[in-house]
Amino acid sequence: MVPRIPRCTPRRGRVAGRGAQRSQSVLVEGREEVLANLSFNADGLVPAIAQQHDTGEVLMLAWMDAEALRRTLATKQATYWSRSRGEYWVKGETSGHRQAVVSVAVDCDGDTVLLQVDQTGPACHTGTRTCFSGREIA
Amino acid sequence: MVPRIPRCTPRRGRVAGRGAQRSQSVLVEGREEVLANLSFNADGLVPAIAQQHDTGEVLMLAWMDAEALRRTLATKQATYWSRSRGEYWVKGETSGHRQAVVSVAVDCDGDTVLLQVDQTGPACHTGTRTCFSGREIA
Repeated sequence: MVPRIPRCTPRRGRVAGRGAQRSQSVLVEGREEVLANLSFNADGLVPAIAQQHDTGEVLMLAWMDAEALRRTLATKQATYWSRSRGEYWVKGETSGHRQAVVSVAVDCDGDTVLLQVDQTGPACHTGTRTCFSGREIA
Repeated sequence: MVPRIPRCTPRRGRVAGRGAQRSQSVLVEGREEVLANLSFNADGLVPAIAQQHDTGEVLMLAWMDAEALRRTLATKQATYWSRSRGEYWVKGETSGHRQAVVSVAVDCDGDTVLLQVDQTGPACHTGTRTCFSGREIA
């Protein structure tokens, strides 16, 4: 059973009414209900953090629209929206460095997605394991 | 010594010239150079992921402008920009659930910040350890 989702703050851009009344139990009612209750930004996107499920490494942050999240949930392969290319992007489709999805969570505001994945090879196309590897500034 | 930062993709909104010539070594030249070379969004913000430094838990995602990052680096207390309140927000200033900053990294695109922190108490004001705790959708 999917747990109830307490929310940190009122969601932006919600329309009061039927949906609002169900705001505390959105995830028990199926995938489309989940998607309908996420708070996408003005571009229709939410940030998605990919974390290696067993080591805890934060691999990267990319962006998803509802369809990218829908595809990710359906295929269990992390699929993002490329803001620079303006197209869906199955992570690793070209490089082979795929992200098999282990689990997906949303945050208390419904405006961030956290993917637990099993990353094949480096997550960053520069060849580093994560997009943060060796990029410490403090 | 701070490492060089290979970048995944060309940064958006850069002006060619002096800055561009130093794009592969921005972090060896000090904090203001780092800040000047980050890719903030149209609102002047970057997403900042807070991760518990020892357990690897992804605690939350919030937003920083240059000044919030400057304050975070200077004080070693995670400081964000609250989009809903329109003000700087020292995490835990009211609740006591502070985030002592252990390290800070930026990603290959320079448009995401990853904080390794030591979180006092729950990160989420709903009382859960992380803002994702118990909010799995798959």
